[in-house]
Amino acid sequence: MTDTVADVTPEIAPSSYDAAQRRSDAIWQKIESDPSGLRMLTGDRPTGALHIGHYFGSLRNRVRLQQAGVETWVIVADYQVITDREILGDIQGSVRELLTDYLAVGIDPERATIFTHSAVPALNQLMLPFLSLVTQPELERNPTVKAELAAAGKSAMGGLMLTYPVHQAADILFCHGNLVPVGKDQLPHIEQTRVIARRFNERYAGGEEYFPEPDALLSESPTILGLDGENKMSKSLGNTVMLRMDEAETLKKIKKAKTDADRQITYDPEDRPEVANLLTIAAQSTGRTPEDIAEEIGDRGAGTLKIFTAEALNAHLAPLRARRAELEQDPGYLMQVLRTGNERANAEADETLQRVREFMGMVY
Amino acid sequence: MTDTVADVTPEIAPSSYDAAQRRSDAIWQKIESDPSGLRMLTGDRPTGALHIGHYFGSLRNRVRLQQAGVETWVIVADYQVITDREILGDIQGSVRELLTDYLAVGIDPERATIFTHSAVPALNQLMLPFLSLVTQPELERNPTVKAELAAAGKSAMGGLMLTYPVHQAADILFCHGNLVPVGKDQLPHIEQTRVIARRFNERYAGGEEYFPEPDALLSESPTILGLDGENKMSKSLGNTVMLRMDEAETLKKIKKAKTDADRQITYDPEDRPEVANLLTIAAQSTGRTPEDIAEEIGDRGAGTLKIFTAEALNAHLAPLRARRAELEQDPGYLMQVLRTGNERANAEADETLQRVREFMGMVY
Repeated sequence: MTDTVADVTPEIAPSSYDAAQRRSDAIWQKIESDPSGLRMLTGDRPTGALHIGHYFGSLRNRVRLQQAGVETWVIVADYQVITDREILGDIQGSVRELLTDYLAVGIDPERATIFTHSAVPALNQLMLPFLSLVTQPELERNPTVKAELAAAGKSAMGGLMLTYPVHQAADILFCHGNLVPVGKDQLPHIEQTRVIARRFNERYAGGEEYFPEPDALLSESPTILGLDGENKMSKSLGNTVMLRMDEAETLKKIKKAKTDADRQITYDPEDRPEVANLLTIAAQSTGRTPEDIAEEIGDRGAGTLKIFTAEALNAHLAPLRARRAELEQDPGYLMQVLRTGNERANAEADETLQRVREFMGMVY
Repeated sequence: MTDTVADVTPEIAPSSYDAAQRRSDAIWQKIESDPSGLRMLTGDRPTGALHIGHYFGSLRNRVRLQQAGVETWVIVADYQVITDREILGDIQGSVRELLTDYLAVGIDPERATIFTHSAVPALNQLMLPFLSLVTQPELERNPTVKAELAAAGKSAMGGLMLTYPVHQAADILFCHGNLVPVGKDQLPHIEQTRVIARRFNERYAGGEEYFPEPDALLSESPTILGLDGENKMSKSLGNTVMLRMDEAETLKKIKKAKTDADRQITYDPEDRPEVANLLTIAAQSTGRTPEDIAEEIGDRGAGTLKIFTAEALNAHLAPLRARRAELEQDPGYLMQVLRTGNERANAEADETLQRVREFMGMVY
């Protein structure tokens, strides 16, 4: 999931990474040959409209997987908004923006199930049996949770953050998701979900493989840096191009991007991260390589690169933005999509909870 | 709640105890004058049939409160069975035994709502917003949780145990319970529920007093020791008289009770705890004082005391046991009572969750 994870080097054994990478590679092959039986769970915190970092880093990959035939479940993780902050803000508005972006980028509500976390009680109830399967040290050990805490500059972790890997397990397992597209920094969470699935099957399901151990699907999607040269594109830093911006705004934003004084444009992410970032955006927008674009710009400097990038990005986003503008005119349709998704998610969660109760003998 | 709490001196400020005691005293007065508006939440872990320690220490008090006009909600806390053990056992059987005991002692399903924790998803969903209102140090500080852990001899606390005060808050608050009959050792849990209610009202309900801050109702109910002289009557120690036993079994159990060699029977809980315990059982069964009974037995020794106690107990329990035997013949009725209770609890929980979503802006 995007926007939930700080940039950290997780404390997970290198061998686990290798194993996860191998499983991920095998799944990419399966997706190409026969995606049947694959069910992806993905999602975002509803903290407002999305930017091109979300788009190139995550959303576009999801749409590709959907198009390839992977069954797609998208959670709008509204409860996650309060894992590290007290203020909820305009959740309804944020959810609407997120839905608009989802549909604009090509998530197809006929094929995908989009739902809000808070709308599915039976999913949330899974928290209780799942909490019985983890220990406090395991919860504390989670590096992403620890990093989130450090990033927030807080001395005391909130209970919702501490238990975050357990709700995430519920989010993935309630619909028997077996595939979660993530970055490497999210691997410890997926590992925790795998452990919970395994323990549930052993302890409560008598060894039946009721819950799948989901696999991380590691992708080659790029990380888009902030236009101010900051590490991460983040709406709160104002260093983004939002999907919903118009062409003029996009151009203006990119013209203001931080670059360097060297007029010869080269693709050198290590030593020239800001220039490389613009080249990456241009490359993602055109399907060309960043090196190829750098060569084309040559010694015409960052100004030329910026105009090239803005135009390429605007051209790429044009159909998406046209759909977005249409969708904005029809909030009733967006809410209908969400309600249909919530109904599907509830039907699935009710069925799963009923099976979980049966396994645990809690049927009265 | 019974059977969930180790015997500990909780780490809670003496002033909090005094304040809780004062509020408790005021509520007892209110119960006598006008119990309207009082809603009690109480319950037990379903670990099997109940014994006279449960009965004299807790159940009888609940029935008195119900008879006095306090609205009664009784949770069968099935998820709590796995807070400190991996083995679930025959939960359905244990729930049936518990229901039989409840109805036998006089909990009236026409007036009381009896429900199982696992049957009420919207109640369980409250866990998530409530977890956002507590910090990890607050969870760890809970003395009852710490004592449970020490008693279980475990090095790592399970996640369900760690978050136990938060589910208990959900159990109490989902039905707007404002009254929880407990022993002093449970005060820290009630205090945690009060804090969660207060914080929810402040942070999410804009200051509206949506959730009540429930009061502990401290009672004078005695603690019945185990018949083997152990600290606590506990089914697993085999030192109990079960409500479901017949008269002969009861007599046999009490005849085997540990006592001392002094033939002069006196009520001295400090120096003669075993004899005092039998006198307490006899006193509770007859409505007389233990001192009075001790004087009647005089120097006729523990053998006479035991027969007196067993006969008094059997006489007191006779109508209860007769009802119990009838109820055992009709498991369909028992399950119907539970289903009706679960329906009522779900209706209440759905309404509460809907209000909570509205307060948090999570209505789509």
